[in-house]
Amino acid sequence: MKRSVFYEKLEDNWQKGKYVCVGLDIDVAKFPEHLSAIGQLDERIVEFNRNIIEATHEYACAYKLNSAHYEKLGLDGHKALKSTILHLRATHPDIVIILDAKRGDIADTNEYYAEAVFDELGADVVTVHPYMGRESLEPFLRRSDHGVIVMGANSAKGADELQGLKVGPDGELLYKYICRTVSEKWNTSGNCAVTAGADDPIKLGEIRGVVGDMPILLLGIGAQGGDLEACVQAGAGRQTFGLIVNSSRAILYASRGTDYAAAAHDAARNMNESLKKAYHGL
Amino acid sequence: MKRSVFYEKLEDNWQKGKYVCVGLDIDVAKFPEHLSAIGQLDERIVEFNRNIIEATHEYACAYKLNSAHYEKLGLDGHKALKSTILHLRATHPDIVIILDAKRGDIADTNEYYAEAVFDELGADVVTVHPYMGRESLEPFLRRSDHGVIVMGANSAKGADELQGLKVGPDGELLYKYICRTVSEKWNTSGNCAVTAGADDPIKLGEIRGVVGDMPILLLGIGAQGGDLEACVQAGAGRQTFGLIVNSSRAILYASRGTDYAAAAHDAARNMNESLKKAYHGL
Repeated sequence: MKRSVFYEKLEDNWQKGKYVCVGLDIDVAKFPEHLSAIGQLDERIVEFNRNIIEATHEYACAYKLNSAHYEKLGLDGHKALKSTILHLRATHPDIVIILDAKRGDIADTNEYYAEAVFDELGADVVTVHPYMGRESLEPFLRRSDHGVIVMGANSAKGADELQGLKVGPDGELLYKYICRTVSEKWNTSGNCAVTAGADDPIKLGEIRGVVGDMPILLLGIGAQGGDLEACVQAGAGRQTFGLIVNSSRAILYASRGTDYAAAAHDAARNMNESLKKAYHGL
Repeated sequence: MKRSVFYEKLEDNWQKGKYVCVGLDIDVAKFPEHLSAIGQLDERIVEFNRNIIEATHEYACAYKLNSAHYEKLGLDGHKALKSTILHLRATHPDIVIILDAKRGDIADTNEYYAEAVFDELGADVVTVHPYMGRESLEPFLRRSDHGVIVMGANSAKGADELQGLKVGPDGELLYKYICRTVSEKWNTSGNCAVTAGADDPIKLGEIRGVVGDMPILLLGIGAQGGDLEACVQAGAGRQTFGLIVNSSRAILYASRGTDYAAAAHDAARNMNESLKKAYHGL
């Protein structure tokens, strides 16, 4: 398997004992009250993100920005998204920047999306929908200097309605078929990953079973920390940690007081310790 | 079947003999040269779009803006997208505005996308990915004042890699299974449509067979006009025209001279005449 910049950055961070993916899913209504003194919305968001980044970077292998949270805010959201990514690239070029945008169109159009996400916004990695097939995703896949995380499984209610369909002659479940296909056929640049939900370690283990050591973005670790240990046991790779364990609200909104950055630091550290312990216990 | 504002607007336009969906997929490199006198990029795009809209609205049941073409241009693209939609709402409130953004996330996140697309940008209708199931799409589906076009089939090369998988006990093809599911289970607000590719009238006819009179967004009508007649024969509804036939480049870039608006008018009129003739010939 080729190793892209995406994989190298992840592995370097994992080797340093940095396992957490901090989800910068901003929600202005949950911001600490004192930040409302910053009148300009985009500046308020960037201030919040910068402080969260400063407080958590020593535990972070990646930052993940969910595009919807920024798109909802229009022009201000767009400016805040771009400024935050610029800030991350300038201050922490060793940490992976994931734009969780779940894009997916025909190849001609995905050229535009790849330019939007990688060149215009400056993200390292993007999440995509697999539905239109490998050829359509080629504009993302061939960017070996960037990463592509393909939607496999996730933990949302009702997600199995289609993901859990039996497909093909062997009746393999669709999410597993897709994860296998990404690993066996789509990952020719060595820059792919897939998603899995943190609610179901058995499913996670099955996905690990078909993707080899490809990274897995683990979604839906709850505010309670979920069953981190079971997820690491089921989902870690053989050669590397292999998991991008995302946590958003539990870190960002650990406190809504003036101590929010310190609280975010502690939440990230605790999660990182739990992940480290679970991984070293294997 | 309930009838949403989306359906009503479409049907009103079809009854007036307006069948074309003009795809405002802007590509600045293909703009008429004289427009480069407008230094501000967002203003140049809006000027182009306004003139195209003015030249084609008498044949248009819908305008479809592909988000990727605007996202690629960053802040200027965002401004141009929003201004174009505002302009459409102000000048042609009777024509459907589709944001072709192919969004799709978990329900909590789709709340943000629905706000971004319907409230912040002001589109009437959005295209979405079905992969995470009905529950995740609920924030779009329940907006009965708006429309939701679910990715079914499309004509891209290699699209059948996943869309053409046999699923479930009966081995139905995935795209057909999804279209059937949208029609039978997801369309409780009467505001759904699905997509089909213009390259395969047989597939289109199969989709029509499982969705009743639900509208179908027809993608991939080429610059040559494709096989419009076969598509109308295979895809028209029983009660209504039922097709949203998108054409982008053949209209937008019919001429690259100062006569581009007149050329777009003629291209839209010709396409509309072809559709009318094919439909009345049924």
